[in-house]
Amino acid sequence: MDASITLQDLAALVGGTLIKGEGGERINGLNSLQEAAAGEVTFLGNTRYLKALQDTKASAALVPPGFSEGAPDGLALIGVENPTLAFSSVIKFFGPKSRELNMGVHPAAVVAASAVFDRAKVFIGPCAVIGEGTVIGEGTVVHAGAFVGADVRIGTDCVLHANSIVKDYSVIGRRVVIHSGAAIGTDGFGYELIKGRHQKIEQVGIVQIDDDVEIGSCTTIDRARFGKTWIGEGTKIDNLVQVGHNVVIGKHCILCAQTGISGSTKLGDYVVMGGQVGVAGHLKIGSQVTFLAKSGVAKDYPDPGAYTGYPAKPLMEGRRMLAAPAKIPELLERVRELEKKVGELTKSGN
Amino acid sequence: MDASITLQDLAALVGGTLIKGEGGERINGLNSLQEAAAGEVTFLGNTRYLKALQDTKASAALVPPGFSEGAPDGLALIGVENPTLAFSSVIKFFGPKSRELNMGVHPAAVVAASAVFDRAKVFIGPCAVIGEGTVIGEGTVVHAGAFVGADVRIGTDCVLHANSIVKDYSVIGRRVVIHSGAAIGTDGFGYELIKGRHQKIEQVGIVQIDDDVEIGSCTTIDRARFGKTWIGEGTKIDNLVQVGHNVVIGKHCILCAQTGISGSTKLGDYVVMGGQVGVAGHLKIGSQVTFLAKSGVAKDYPDPGAYTGYPAKPLMEGRRMLAAPAKIPELLERVRELEKKVGELTKSGN
Amino acid sequence: MDASITLQDLAALVGGTLIKGEGGERINGLNSLQEAAAGEVTFLGNTRYLKALQDTKASAALVPPGFSEGAPDGLALIGVENPTLAFSSVIKFFGPKSRELNMGVHPAAVVAASAVFDRAKVFIGPCAVIGEGTVIGEGTVVHAGAFVGADVRIGTDCVLHANSIVKDYSVIGRRVVIHSGAAIGTDGFGYELIKGRHQKIEQVGIVQIDDDVEIGSCTTIDRARFGKTWIGEGTKIDNLVQVGHNVVIGKHCILCAQTGISGSTKLGDYVVMGGQVGVAGHLKIGSQVTFLAKSGVAKDYPDPGAYTGYPAKPLMEGRRMLAAPAKIPELLERVRELEKKVGELTKSGN
Repeated sequence: MDASITLQDLAALVGGTLIKGEGGERINGLNSLQEAAAGEVTFLGNTRYLKALQDTKASAALVPPGFSEGAPDGLALIGVENPTLAFSSVIKFFGPKSRELNMGVHPAAVVAASAVFDRAKVFIGPCAVIGEGTVIGEGTVVHAGAFVGADVRIGTDCVLHANSIVKDYSVIGRRVVIHSGAAIGTDGFGYELIKGRHQKIEQVGIVQIDDDVEIGSCTTIDRARFGKTWIGEGTKIDNLVQVGHNVVIGKHCILCAQTGISGSTKLGDYVVMGGQVGVAGHLKIGSQVTFLAKSGVAKDYPDPGAYTGYPAKPLMEGRRMLAAPAKIPELLERVRELEKKVGELTKSGN
Repeated sequence: MDASITLQDLAALVGGTLIKGEGGERINGLNSLQEAAAGEVTFLGNTRYLKALQDTKASAALVPPGFSEGAPDGLALIGVENPTLAFSSVIKFFGPKSRELNMGVHPAAVVAASAVFDRAKVFIGPCAVIGEGTVIGEGTVVHAGAFVGADVRIGTDCVLHANSIVKDYSVIGRRVVIHSGAAIGTDGFGYELIKGRHQKIEQVGIVQIDDDVEIGSCTTIDRARFGKTWIGEGTKIDNLVQVGHNVVIGKHCILCAQTGISGSTKLGDYVVMGGQVGVAGHLKIGSQVTFLAKSGVAKDYPDPGAYTGYPAKPLMEGRRMLAAPAKIPELLERVRELEKKVGELTKSGN
Repeated sequence: MDASITLQDLAALVGGTLIKGEGGERINGLNSLQEAAAGEVTFLGNTRYLKALQDTKASAALVPPGFSEGAPDGLALIGVENPTLAFSSVIKFFGPKSRELNMGVHPAAVVAASAVFDRAKVFIGPCAVIGEGTVIGEGTVVHAGAFVGADVRIGTDCVLHANSIVKDYSVIGRRVVIHSGAAIGTDGFGYELIKGRHQKIEQVGIVQIDDDVEIGSCTTIDRARFGKTWIGEGTKIDNLVQVGHNVVIGKHCILCAQTGISGSTKLGDYVVMGGQVGVAGHLKIGSQVTFLAKSGVAKDYPDPGAYTGYPAKPLMEGRRMLAAPAKIPELLERVRELEKKVGELTKSGN
């Protein structure tokens, strides 16, 4: 992080306007509101951080366009439409530069003879394995140790990170990112109990992942029993998430870490799940449904809205429900008191 | 899926009887009741799907032997003992054919000199690593990138999927399937706090996995502190499950995704755990105990039966318990009302 | 386990004193109190196992120094400061001996030309990959299939187990252990919703792991958005744990399996989390805070102490809260009874 930039150039870099401050002042780093030091730039991503902005030791901040009130005197301000997003450019400027990746197949990669891709326009890292009949689009990067099975189709400009796994017959769209340790297309979990033994139900379907999906580390997405397990366009899945067989996830959903979705459940578009949410199988979750962290979902939720708790209830009701048990000891006391009084009244009344 | 088959041959394939329909009619695919189209075969796995059967667009369905009422007019019916299981044969017939696997050791595999197996009767994929002194039975397949440590014993006809991990001294039975990213035999989690520092308690035991066990992707099974962590015959474990050190799991158990079992807990046979169940350490869970999803288990459960909630209660009680907090706001209102009335009564009574 | 040792030598081995028993008696194995057989040594790790000690079939036991009452007649006793810890020496003596590891780089390892380490004093296993510019300290072992990215710094005497992943720019201290399948330094989970699409927020920070940290199998620790995700000295993390971007974990913390900590949350020192705990983002957890298994943490907890439940409450209150829903059916009954009586009183009063 040895780079530095003037405020003027910084404003231009983020496509913003210098609201306050000397255009020639140099900025030599970046940090959060709380941790920034003099000489660094920070950003106000949300008005609830106003207090932190007032206390920041940064020399400059990206703020919403009209913003001016409430900033400390010495703080230079650059107005920009979306400070959080604009800060990504700042991060790119100051952040460590990724090493250049030269496309091509590493000599220690193991590529099946019948795999189809342009060896000059794809990167296959050392110890990565590409199976028979697999097709890979231009610009796609398969990092070291990643396993791509047979008859897989991968679109253009994807990134399969080190030691990620994509099994046979999976269909991957364009610009899909699969992080390390994720396992795509492993068998679904299905058995029939026959004479005291769990007999495996054959799992021969596939996983289809549409364009612009990102899948976190050590996340598991099972192949369908038949047909497909399907992750819709633009959906983002965090680490350690379980997606069961024949699950269909709509477009632009967000699934946070350690959430699990059981087999055959279908999600609409723009569904959001916090961390550690559990969803039973064979359910239908409508578009724009949000489940807060740790929710338990055991029935259909067709209507948009936020839900919390187990069983998940609409937000306000669910919050009351989560808070309710804390009120029981006092409630018990009040009922005891009532019983005493009513007992006395009954006695005196007789 | 270019294959097709006559109804007559389909009935023979599944060992069933054509109850209704033209034996010569051709079927060219398969699907679920909801998603099947004309020309496809489906199945009735459970009578609660009768409504879906009535609405199906499929041309044929596998149904229980005596079944006839309630099916739509044009739907051919094949009677068979277990339609769900029988459908596996149909899936195999129509599903993608797995590529033939030629036994042998891939040139890019790394096999220790002292490993013992018949190189013509075992498959070791590229970048798979087999440690010193390890013994592998005939018919076993170790896929690409899998790691098998030293002094491991693996029985016949096992499958270790790509990038799975089996560490030193593990003992694996016959027909065991270990999915991608699963880590078997890593250290248990045990420390003693000595003068403010967590000092590691040595973990030198093993993991033993008996015949016909299947272990899901990214599931972790820790080696015992000493002795063994033991997974009984026929038990099936889903993805992202944690099995702590010295845990003993009986025969024919089912553990669904993201469940965790803490150290030294012992399960009987035919135990079933839904997803995201958490079990504390040093407990005893009897045979034929079922815990529903998200249950919290913090004491012994010696008696067979289904339990739910945290702390887990017998099914009916547990369900009432999970529903109970939703009743508290109304209960509070009723107590407030009672207090008002009793206050008035007390006043008027005095 | 063919070794045997006299009681006298055993006492010397653990640095203890033979309280009771014949010094020349030979011990040929070890086991837990419950499972030990004649000829074996066991240990009393906690006085709550006194009953098990009385019933043990072992021939000898490690016990606290002054201990003598309550042990069965034939049981030899060796007094030692910390029986649990001392037993580790016994385990090492009887346990399987790990194969000698000869330092050096395996010919099937893939090491970038610009990586910096002493090839005679580091072990790099087969199919392990070391990226450009990475520095590795003496005595460090990188097992088979492990991936170490570019510009990583790893201290001395670390162990990276098979198929573990450490991504670019990570900084790893000394004596750090990373178990199989763990993924360190993958992207944080951050998006901005722009015109209906989740646009990725660049993640360019690093992960820093300080000395003596141990990280379990398939645990994921995300790199910071900028700055660092930081695991403090001596902290131990179990399997399948999620640590979000910019999380700071203090020194000597314990995080049990399947726990998840959301982005930017900060933990003090000696924080303990049971299994499956969920912690929301941007929170502050003070030193010496303990959350019991399955706790849900959605606000700051500055004060030391144990907490349980969701939302997590101080231990006693939390336990009452978890038990409370079970009391509601009875409470409802009592309120119904009161309403009846009050109704009658009101009627008769009028």
